[in-house]
Amino acid sequence: MYPDSLKNLIESFKFLPSVGEKTAERFAFSIFDLDDDQIQLFKDSLDDVRNKVHPCSICNVLTENDICSICSDEFRSSNILCVVEDVKSVFLFEKIGMFKGKYHVLNGLISPLDGINPEDIGIDKLLDRIHNENFDEIIFAFKPSIEGETTSLYIKKILDGLPLKITKIANGVPIGADMEYVDSLTLERALSDRKIIE
Amino acid sequence: MYPDSLKNLIESFKFLPSVGEKTAERFAFSIFDLDDDQIQLFKDSLDDVRNKVHPCSICNVLTENDICSICSDEFRSSNILCVVEDVKSVFLFEKIGMFKGKYHVLNGLISPLDGINPEDIGIDKLLDRIHNENFDEIIFAFKPSIEGETTSLYIKKILDGLPLKITKIANGVPIGADMEYVDSLTLERALSDRKIIE
Repeated sequence: MYPDSLKNLIESFKFLPSVGEKTAERFAFSIFDLDDDQIQLFKDSLDDVRNKVHPCSICNVLTENDICSICSDEFRSSNILCVVEDVKSVFLFEKIGMFKGKYHVLNGLISPLDGINPEDIGIDKLLDRIHNENFDEIIFAFKPSIEGETTSLYIKKILDGLPLKITKIANGVPIGADMEYVDSLTLERALSDRKIIE
Repeated sequence: MYPDSLKNLIESFKFLPSVGEKTAERFAFSIFDLDDDQIQLFKDSLDDVRNKVHPCSICNVLTENDICSICSDEFRSSNILCVVEDVKSVFLFEKIGMFKGKYHVLNGLISPLDGINPEDIGIDKLLDRIHNENFDEIIFAFKPSIEGETTSLYIKKILDGLPLKITKIANGVPIGADMEYVDSLTLERALSDRKIIE
């Protein structure tokens, strides 16, 4: 019933995460309201993201250059390394703008149940980097999960004996959360990690 | 912080209705998971929808041809015309597949408060068509609203005296609705339009 190109556009929008038929239709119809420049930007950026963007050769953050803007920033502290599970985490940290060290992006987390082993997530590249650069502290910033724990412990074990402070970001009740909606595991963790009020 | 092309892609996704920063980011990152054919389809269909799709010269339904597949379908009844407020309504009706007549798509509904007058919604083209073709019945299928009522009444008045049955689709409690969530206007309408059980 739809013209072919409209049908194809609807199918294309359905490639996007959690976009179903209805939303894809709404998106496709909205394309008629855009001007030519907007369509051009849309098409070009689809192309560019695919062709120009790739992982930084040092830290795996997405970049259009060989080395990303964070790795090549001389004003960032090069003695503290924040290890994350995906590129998106870096962008999240950069948005709050509090961390001024370097990052290293793993390709996910170790998950033996899903057949994801240490070698699959690029731990060798991380270890090489830790051995070759002069970090004082390694921070693990993984999502609170068994996989996050496993990955932290695995790497920590290998690094044992090196003159490094190894830390991980705090878990607990999120700011602004209603206590009644906080799950029991988070609450347990918040309780056992309680801090003295100074 | 994001590479330029990723930033542009995020901006592009924000052109879509009710897509904010977070969703646009999620969409943009998902593009890395598509294969080349999918990206090609996405880009081509964006182009094609803009360049090939236009309103049918008879009824305004979107088509890639001069005359749409509905208008050129000889097996559809040409004595009953369903007038709708936008192209999407046609696709909704075609999905249920119950209506076998022809359609006419207006460019919205009359809304004096918003400065939308009869001439703005293409009523002349509709009237020409009604005068030149041989319809027995005109159905108005507008959304239940003051604008819908105004538009129906305006057109009905002009058609007065012609040998035409003029109808509108029923309003009432939607099938599957929980009575407690039905708004009072709908309930009023459902009550006043009640039907004898046969």
